[in-house]
Amino acid sequence: MRIAAFGEIMMRLTPPEYLMLEQTKELRLDFTGTGVNILSNLAHFGCQTSLLTNLPNNRLGEAAKASVRQLGIQDRWIGFSGDHIGSYFAEMGFGPRPTQVTYQNRRNSSFGVSGASNYDFDAFLAETDLVHICGISLSLTKETREAAFVLAEKAHALGKKVCFDFNFRPSLNEVHGVAFMKEQYEKMLPYCDLVFGSQRDLTDLLDMPLSETVDCANQFEELVHRFMTKYQIERFAGTIRQGEGDKHYLTGFLFDSENYVQAAPREIIHLDRIGAGDGYAAGILLGYSESWSLVESVEFATANGVLAHTIQGDVPLTTRKQVRHIMEQPTVDLIR
Amino acid sequence: MRIAAFGEIMMRLTPPEYLMLEQTKELRLDFTGTGVNILSNLAHFGCQTSLLTNLPNNRLGEAAKASVRQLGIQDRWIGFSGDHIGSYFAEMGFGPRPTQVTYQNRRNSSFGVSGASNYDFDAFLAETDLVHICGISLSLTKETREAAFVLAEKAHALGKKVCFDFNFRPSLNEVHGVAFMKEQYEKMLPYCDLVFGSQRDLTDLLDMPLSETVDCANQFEELVHRFMTKYQIERFAGTIRQGEGDKHYLTGFLFDSENYVQAAPREIIHLDRIGAGDGYAAGILLGYSESWSLVESVEFATANGVLAHTIQGDVPLTTRKQVRHIMEQPTVDLIR
Amino acid sequence: MRIAAFGEIMMRLTPPEYLMLEQTKELRLDFTGTGVNILSNLAHFGCQTSLLTNLPNNRLGEAAKASVRQLGIQDRWIGFSGDHIGSYFAEMGFGPRPTQVTYQNRRNSSFGVSGASNYDFDAFLAETDLVHICGISLSLTKETREAAFVLAEKAHALGKKVCFDFNFRPSLNEVHGVAFMKEQYEKMLPYCDLVFGSQRDLTDLLDMPLSETVDCANQFEELVHRFMTKYQIERFAGTIRQGEGDKHYLTGFLFDSENYVQAAPREIIHLDRIGAGDGYAAGILLGYSESWSLVESVEFATANGVLAHTIQGDVPLTTRKQVRHIMEQPTVDLIR
Amino acid sequence: MRIAAFGEIMMRLTPPEYLMLEQTKELRLDFTGTGVNILSNLAHFGCQTSLLTNLPNNRLGEAAKASVRQLGIQDRWIGFSGDHIGSYFAEMGFGPRPTQVTYQNRRNSSFGVSGASNYDFDAFLAETDLVHICGISLSLTKETREAAFVLAEKAHALGKKVCFDFNFRPSLNEVHGVAFMKEQYEKMLPYCDLVFGSQRDLTDLLDMPLSETVDCANQFEELVHRFMTKYQIERFAGTIRQGEGDKHYLTGFLFDSENYVQAAPREIIHLDRIGAGDGYAAGILLGYSESWSLVESVEFATANGVLAHTIQGDVPLTTRKQVRHIMEQPTVDLIR
Amino acid sequence: MRIAAFGEIMMRLTPPEYLMLEQTKELRLDFTGTGVNILSNLAHFGCQTSLLTNLPNNRLGEAAKASVRQLGIQDRWIGFSGDHIGSYFAEMGFGPRPTQVTYQNRRNSSFGVSGASNYDFDAFLAETDLVHICGISLSLTKETREAAFVLAEKAHALGKKVCFDFNFRPSLNEVHGVAFMKEQYEKMLPYCDLVFGSQRDLTDLLDMPLSETVDCANQFEELVHRFMTKYQIERFAGTIRQGEGDKHYLTGFLFDSENYVQAAPREIIHLDRIGAGDGYAAGILLGYSESWSLVESVEFATANGVLAHTIQGDVPLTTRKQVRHIMEQPTVDLIR
Amino acid sequence: MRIAAFGEIMMRLTPPEYLMLEQTKELRLDFTGTGVNILSNLAHFGCQTSLLTNLPNNRLGEAAKASVRQLGIQDRWIGFSGDHIGSYFAEMGFGPRPTQVTYQNRRNSSFGVSGASNYDFDAFLAETDLVHICGISLSLTKETREAAFVLAEKAHALGKKVCFDFNFRPSLNEVHGVAFMKEQYEKMLPYCDLVFGSQRDLTDLLDMPLSETVDCANQFEELVHRFMTKYQIERFAGTIRQGEGDKHYLTGFLFDSENYVQAAPREIIHLDRIGAGDGYAAGILLGYSESWSLVESVEFATANGVLAHTIQGDVPLTTRKQVRHIMEQPTVDLIR
Repeated sequence: MRIAAFGEIMMRLTPPEYLMLEQTKELRLDFTGTGVNILSNLAHFGCQTSLLTNLPNNRLGEAAKASVRQLGIQDRWIGFSGDHIGSYFAEMGFGPRPTQVTYQNRRNSSFGVSGASNYDFDAFLAETDLVHICGISLSLTKETREAAFVLAEKAHALGKKVCFDFNFRPSLNEVHGVAFMKEQYEKMLPYCDLVFGSQRDLTDLLDMPLSETVDCANQFEELVHRFMTKYQIERFAGTIRQGEGDKHYLTGFLFDSENYVQAAPREIIHLDRIGAGDGYAAGILLGYSESWSLVESVEFATANGVLAHTIQGDVPLTTRKQVRHIMEQPTVDLIR
Repeated sequence: MRIAAFGEIMMRLTPPEYLMLEQTKELRLDFTGTGVNILSNLAHFGCQTSLLTNLPNNRLGEAAKASVRQLGIQDRWIGFSGDHIGSYFAEMGFGPRPTQVTYQNRRNSSFGVSGASNYDFDAFLAETDLVHICGISLSLTKETREAAFVLAEKAHALGKKVCFDFNFRPSLNEVHGVAFMKEQYEKMLPYCDLVFGSQRDLTDLLDMPLSETVDCANQFEELVHRFMTKYQIERFAGTIRQGEGDKHYLTGFLFDSENYVQAAPREIIHLDRIGAGDGYAAGILLGYSESWSLVESVEFATANGVLAHTIQGDVPLTTRKQVRHIMEQPTVDLIR
Repeated sequence: MRIAAFGEIMMRLTPPEYLMLEQTKELRLDFTGTGVNILSNLAHFGCQTSLLTNLPNNRLGEAAKASVRQLGIQDRWIGFSGDHIGSYFAEMGFGPRPTQVTYQNRRNSSFGVSGASNYDFDAFLAETDLVHICGISLSLTKETREAAFVLAEKAHALGKKVCFDFNFRPSLNEVHGVAFMKEQYEKMLPYCDLVFGSQRDLTDLLDMPLSETVDCANQFEELVHRFMTKYQIERFAGTIRQGEGDKHYLTGFLFDSENYVQAAPREIIHLDRIGAGDGYAAGILLGYSESWSLVESVEFATANGVLAHTIQGDVPLTTRKQVRHIMEQPTVDLIR
Repeated sequence: MRIAAFGEIMMRLTPPEYLMLEQTKELRLDFTGTGVNILSNLAHFGCQTSLLTNLPNNRLGEAAKASVRQLGIQDRWIGFSGDHIGSYFAEMGFGPRPTQVTYQNRRNSSFGVSGASNYDFDAFLAETDLVHICGISLSLTKETREAAFVLAEKAHALGKKVCFDFNFRPSLNEVHGVAFMKEQYEKMLPYCDLVFGSQRDLTDLLDMPLSETVDCANQFEELVHRFMTKYQIERFAGTIRQGEGDKHYLTGFLFDSENYVQAAPREIIHLDRIGAGDGYAAGILLGYSESWSLVESVEFATANGVLAHTIQGDVPLTTRKQVRHIMEQPTVDLIR
Repeated sequence: MRIAAFGEIMMRLTPPEYLMLEQTKELRLDFTGTGVNILSNLAHFGCQTSLLTNLPNNRLGEAAKASVRQLGIQDRWIGFSGDHIGSYFAEMGFGPRPTQVTYQNRRNSSFGVSGASNYDFDAFLAETDLVHICGISLSLTKETREAAFVLAEKAHALGKKVCFDFNFRPSLNEVHGVAFMKEQYEKMLPYCDLVFGSQRDLTDLLDMPLSETVDCANQFEELVHRFMTKYQIERFAGTIRQGEGDKHYLTGFLFDSENYVQAAPREIIHLDRIGAGDGYAAGILLGYSESWSLVESVEFATANGVLAHTIQGDVPLTTRKQVRHIMEQPTVDLIR
Repeated sequence: MRIAAFGEIMMRLTPPEYLMLEQTKELRLDFTGTGVNILSNLAHFGCQTSLLTNLPNNRLGEAAKASVRQLGIQDRWIGFSGDHIGSYFAEMGFGPRPTQVTYQNRRNSSFGVSGASNYDFDAFLAETDLVHICGISLSLTKETREAAFVLAEKAHALGKKVCFDFNFRPSLNEVHGVAFMKEQYEKMLPYCDLVFGSQRDLTDLLDMPLSETVDCANQFEELVHRFMTKYQIERFAGTIRQGEGDKHYLTGFLFDSENYVQAAPREIIHLDRIGAGDGYAAGILLGYSESWSLVESVEFATANGVLAHTIQGDVPLTTRKQVRHIMEQPTVDLIR
C-alpha cells in the first residue's frame, strides 16, 4: 500500500541539553510536521511513502527537501511556492518544568499560502493508495482548508483511503471560534475512512453528547460507534495518557465498525515530550495497510508511541525490529 | 521596591553531558554567585535590580558584566579593581555519583581584595530599597568582611531593608574557626531585617541551644522566634530537604515575628544540583517586596526552588508564569 | 550624547564552520539588525544607548531582549506586539564561494506590523539626543514607513538630531518599485541631520544626476554637496570597497557642509562578510557625538569597519582600545 | 539522461576546527566515495541519479543509506552484504601543514567482499543510461575487480555509456604491482566511452610513450588522441594543478575525438583539500548529458571543481546557480 | 603489585545526547576495551598498570596510545603491527529504548592479526605480577587464541598470577560453535588463578551440571567450588543483575576456595549501559592485590560497578575517594 | 638523553571559531606551559621526557596530570601543593584583529607558591640528563625564583646540562623593575649551558651594549659570542620574525662557541598565534641531544616552529615525519 500525506513541513529549533533560549546560542534544526513524522516512521517500517506539500524555492526549501529524503520519504510531490517555512522553538522540559513550544509565523508559510490550485492532486492521487490529512490544515488558513477539502473529496471519489487526524488545537483557532471549526470538521468527515481523535474531539468540537442511557463504562464506546456510523468511518483510533503517582502511562485504543480494543498501558519515559501521537498513528496505519488484527495493531502502535518518546525530536525513527524488541524482550537494555 | 545585592561574581566552568574533567576539553562558562542568582531571578519576576561588586578591568571583567546585564541586572554599580575572578569547576553528578565542585582561588579575586573604600556605598544606597548581603562576605577576606559591615551599618542607618543570608561554609573558614566566625555573624545581625538560615546556623554557629522546656515539635519555632527577638529580625526563612526512599523533597519555611508557616513538600528532580537555595530566596524576597501573605510567599518560593533544580546552571531564570504553571497545572508537561 | 535607534531586531541563524544548510543540524542564534549593531558598538565605546522597537510577547521576545541587554543596549523602550521575529539564515562563504543569506518572513514580524500608534515616541525622545533610523523601515511595511515618518518629524521638531541610513535594497521593494520608494526617501530626508549613503543612492534612487560641467574627479563631491544643501544635511558618510588582484580594501568618506575627507584604504580580511557598514556608521557617530575632526572620524570609522569584518556575526563588538590598537600598532598580532 | 555509479560508500571521520586526532574526542561523520560525490553533485544539478553498491545490513548501513538519500541519490540499488564499511580519518591541514588521511580496513568492507553475483546488473542497467565506474574497483579486491568488469561489459553490450575514472593510487596496489594493474586497466578500457585521467596514467600505468616526433607543446594532445583512438574513447578529461608563488590554480582539460580544450585557470582557495576532482567530473558529465560544447563544459567543470574546494567534506553540493554565480559575478561575495 | 592486561584497544564512536546514528553527524571518539577499562580504573586507584597489545603504526595508533597514557596506563608494551583498529558504534538507549551496539570489523584489527610471535612475552612478564586476559581473545582469531595460550602458560610457569575473564559472547562465535569454544576455555583454565564468570558460563559453556543432590539455595555455591577445585582456581567472581518493578539492582559475588560472599544489592541508575562489569572486576583486583577480606572486596567492587554506570563511556574513572563516598555518605549528592 | 623541564602547568581557555569571550559560553580547555610544550614535542620526537612541577591535590590537578601524560610526558615528578592552577583566556585573533590573552591569577598557583623545599631535586636530577628552566620562574614569585636557582645550581654541580629560556615579559615584572630582574638573570646564567633568548634580552635586560667598533652586520654575532664567553654558554638560540608586505616569515639562529648559523626564512601561516617559540626550542634541543650539525638543527627547528603555528593550542604535537615532510615535500598538501 502506497501511503502519502498532505501537510506542512516545519522547522523545529531546539536548544541542546535542556537549556532555555536565554541560556544558549546553539540550536538544533530539524524538519518536522505530522505528515513528515508519520511517513518517516512508515518508511522506516519499509513502506513506500510520499509527501505532498509546498516549500519556498530557496536554500531553506532545498535543505528541507534533503531532510525529508533522508527520512525515507519521496520528495517528488513537494512543490515550491511562497517564501517562508513556519517554525517553532522547543525549550525541552525537565522533571516538573514543562517543555515550552514557541511558534513563529505559520500562517504565512509556503504551505499556509498554498491553495488547491497550487497542487496537482490528480497526478498525486494516481500514485497513492491512502492519504493522510492533518486537521491542522482546517485551522491554518483559508487556502489550506480549501486544499484539504478538494484533496479529500477527490481521493474519496477515486476510492482511495482517506485518513484524517483531528489534531484540534484551540490556540490556533482563536479567531474563528469552535462553531466555525465544527462546520469545517463536519465537512471533512464524510470523505474519511480512518480517523484519529479523542473523546473530547467528539463531545466538545463536534458537540456529540455522551449517551445518558448507557452505563459509564460503555459511554465512550457507544459514542465512538455512533460517530463512526454517522460518517461511515472504518477505523477510529487514539491514545490515552494516565498518571499514577509520578509515573505516566500511555495506552492506545482502536475501533472498527463493531469492535473496540485497548492496549495494555506502557510506562512513558520521555527524552522528548513531543511526537508520540505520530508514532502511534504510524503503528496503526502499518497494521491497517497489512491487515493486522485490531489487537496486534494497537499493541504495536502503543509500543511504538512509547518508543517515540525516547527519541530526540518529533520524528519517530523506529524500525519494526526495535518495536518488536521492546514488546518481546523489554528487560534487555543493551543489544550487541 | 528596588532590590540590590552585594556579592561576588564567579565563573562556573561545567563539562557537558555529565562528563568528568578528565573526559573532555569542552567547558561551558557561566557567571554566577548568590547575588547574581537572586537578582537575576527577581529581574525575571519583573523587579528592578542592581548588583554592587568589583571585577577586573579586562576582557573577562567586561564579559562578566555583559552576562550580568543579559540576566536583567543593572551593571552600573559594578566597579573595577584587582585582576582576577574566582572560579569553580562543576562536574555534574548522575544518580549515585555526586556533583563535584572544585574551587579555584577565590580570596585573591577582584571582589576578595576590595574593601569598603573600593565602593561608593552612599550613592549606591540612595538608589536602593533593600540590599541583600551574602554571608560568604564574612568568610572570604578581611576586606570583604569590612565592606559588608560598613554597607550593612549604613543601610540600616538609612532605614533601608537589609537581607542577610548565613551561607556558612565550614570549608571556607578553616583558618579562623567557628568562634571567630560567630563574632562576625553577631556583629552583622543587628543591622538585619530579613535573614535566611537553618536551625544549625543558630545552634552550631551562634551557639543558641534548643529549649529543653519546649516539647520537641515546637523547639525549632521557639528557637527561631528567640533569635528573631534578640536581633529584631522581621523575617526568617530557609529550606529543608527530606529523603523518602529514593525520592527527595524540598520544603520551605518562613517566620515573621509571630507566625511560622511551612510549604507543602515538593519532589526534587534535579538537572543541576546547585542553586535551588537562591531560587527559594528570590521567591521569598518577591513576596516580601509585594506584601504577600506568609503562606503565599512560602508556597511560591518552594515551587520556585524546585524549578531552579530543573535548570542548567546556578542561575534561576524562572518567570512568574512558569512558577504559577507548576503550582496550578502540575500535570501539563508540554505547553504550546 | 544619548544615542538611540529605531529598527528591527532580527534572528540570524548561522551554521558552524562554513557548513551549508544541508550539511548540518547545528545553528548559531544571534539577534541582530542595523540598530542593534550600531548601538551595541556605541555601547562598547562607552556611550549610553537605547533601542526603540517591538517584539513578540513570548519566550523568543524575552530571549531577544536579554541578548540586546547583553550587548550593552537599554531595553526599556522595547515593547511587545505581534507574534513573530523576522529571521535570516547565513551560510558563510569561503574563498570564491559567496556568503548566502536566505530571509524568512520579515513583513509579518512584530516590528513589521507595528505602526506609530504602537510606540510612545514623545517619552522616548525626551530621553534621546540623537536617533538613528534605518531606511529599511521605509521599505518594510506601511506601518513601519508611517512610524518612521512620525518619529523623524517629531524628533526634528524637538531639535533632536536625526541620523538616517539609506540602506536601500531593491530586493525588498519589488512590489512598489523605485518611483514609489523615491517619494518615501524624499519625504524622510528633510527631517535628517546625518545621512549614510552612496553615490548610487543619490543618482539611481533620488534621480540626482552627476553634473556634466564638473570634471570627473570632483563629480561625486559636487553631487553630495548639492544633495546636502537641498535637504539641509549636516553630515553625509559612507564606504567604498575596492578590489586589487585578490585583495579587497575598504575606505570611508565623510562630508560636512563644506569639506570632504576620505580615509586611507585598509585591507579587508573577513571572518564574516556581513556587518562592516554598521561598524563604520558607529565610528562616524562616535566622532560626531564627541566633536572629532572629520579626518579623525573617518580614519577611526574605517578601521572599525575593517575590524567588524574580523568578528563573527553582524554585531561589531569592538572597543576604542581595539580600534586604536590596529591604528597604532598594526603589526602586533598577539597581546598579552 | 539517467546517470548511475558503481562504487564504494565510505565513512569519513573528521576532527573539527583543524584539530589533530590527539587533540579531540569530537568527530564529524560523513558518508562519501567517488560515486557518492559525483552523483550527489549531479542530483544537485537536477539529474536523476542512482548508486549501485553494497552495505552491511545493520544500523550503520541504514545510516549510510539515509545519508545518500539526503544527498539526492536514489537508494534502491543499494543492497546488503558483509558487515563492515571502510572508513578514513581526515586530519585537516592548515597552511604548510598537509591534510593527513588515515585509512581503516577497506578490503573487508561490504563493497570489498561483494562480487558480480551480489548485484543484479541487468535490472540496474535497464534503468540507467550512463554508468560511472571508479578505478578503485580494479585495485580493491578480486571481487570488486570482477564485478567492475562484468558490469562494464554488460553495459557496453547494451549500448549504455560507460564512464571510467583511472583513480590509480599506487598505495592501494603495493601487492600486485604496476604490471598487474596495467592488465586490469587494459581489460576495462575497451568497454569505456568517457574516461577521466591524467598524462601520467597513460605514460606510467599504460606505458604509452610520448611521441618524440611531435614538438613538446603538442605531445600531450597527440598522446591522448592516440589513446582515445586505440580504445575508441569518446571523451577524455582531467585536471591540472599549478602553483605560482604561494597561490594554486586549477584548470581542466577535455578532449573529444578531434578537439582539445582547456579552461582558464582558477585560483584554488581550499576549505577542504579533498574532493575537487569529483566536482570537476560531475561538471563534465553534466555537460555531456546535455550536449554542451567542449568549452562550455570545461569552463563550468573547472569552476565547479574550484567551488568543491570551498565546501567542507568530499561531497560537492553545488547547484547550477552557484557555479554560474562565480562564473558571472565573481566579485559579489555576499548574496541576499 | 604490578598489574597488566593483554587485550584489544577498540574505538568507540558515540552520538551525543542520546541521538541515533541517522540523527547526527557528530560522534564522540573513545578508546576502550576490557583491558583498558580495568587497568585505567586500577591506575585511578593508584596501582601501576601496563597494557600489552598491538596497534597500527599510523596516526590512529598514535592517538590510541596517547589516550591510553592519559588514562594512567603505561604504553611501553604497546607494539605496532597490522593497519586497523576494531571499532563499534554505541547508540545510547533511553528508558525502554535499549542501547544499540554495532561492531565494525574486529577480526582484521592489529590486535586480531597479531599472534604470539608479535609480542615479547618474557620481557613483559618480567615486569608484571598479575596479568589479566580477556576471554574475547579465545574467540577473536586463531592468532589471538594462540597468543593468549602462550602468554597464560608462560605467566603460570613463572609463578605470575593469571586472571581470566570468561567474557563469552555467542555472537562472536557463530562460526566455531560452543563445542569448539569449550575446548579453548578448558585449555586456558588450568593456567588461571582468578576467574570472572557467571553460572551460565559454567553450565552452558563448560557443560558442568548443577548438582541435583544439593538443595537449590546452595547449588550455585557447590557448582563454583567444584569448578574451582577442578582447575585450582583461587578466586571466582562475578555480578548478578536483578529487576524489581522498574528498578534494577547490581550485586557482586566472590568465592575463595572455601567461602562465598555476596554484596548488598545496589540500585543501578545508568548514564551509560556499557562497562559496569569492568568496574566490578577492577574493584575485585584491587582488593586482591591489597589482601582485603572477601566482604570488603565485594562491597567495594559492587559500589564501583554501580558508579561505572554513572560515567559516560566504558572506562570507569572512579577513584577510591569516590567509591568510599557513595559507600559512606550515599545521601550527599553535592560535594564542595 | 633524558630531558626534563621545571615549569608551570597552566590552563588555557579558548572560545571556539574565533569568537570573543562575550560571544560564547563554550570554551576549550588545554593544559599548557613552556615546559609542557617543549617536552610534549620532544616526546613526539621519541625522547624520554619528564616534568617537575606542582599542582593542587584536587580534581583539576588530576585532570592536568592526565593531560600531561597524554602528551607523552612522564608525570612521576609532578607533586601536589597549593590549591590553584594559573589560567589564561585566549581570544583568537583573525586578520588585523590581534589574539588577546587575558591572564587570571598566576602568582597564587600551586607552582607559584612552591619553593625549593617542595621538590626533591636530587632524586629528580638522578634521572635527568638535561633540564630546561623557563625564565618565567625568575619573575613569578620569590618561591619560584628560589626553586629555580637551587635546581640550576644542583644540576650544574652534578654535571647535568642546564637549558635556560630568557622568556622575559615586562608585564610580569612591573613591581620589581628591570634592575632587580637583571640581577636574577645574572645569578642564573653561570649555571647554564644552553640559552634561548634575543638580542634585546642581552642589550635591554642584561645591559650589554652592541660594540661600536664592529660593523653593523656583525654586531649581533659579536654581542652573542661576548655573552656566551662571559657565562660559559655552549649554545645560544632564538628566532626572528620579519614582515614583508602582508606576509610574515620566521627564521631561527643558533650559535655555538665559534659559529653562527641562520635558517632560511619560512612563511608563517598561523592557525594559532601562540606557541611557535616552544616548537623552535624543541627542535634545537632535539638536534643538541642527537649531536646534529648547527645547520641541520636550525633548519629543522625553524620548520618545526612554523608548523607549530598551524596547530591549535600552544602545544606543538609535531612528529619528525611531519617536519621532514614540509622540509622535503612542501608542495604536497594532502597525504593519503
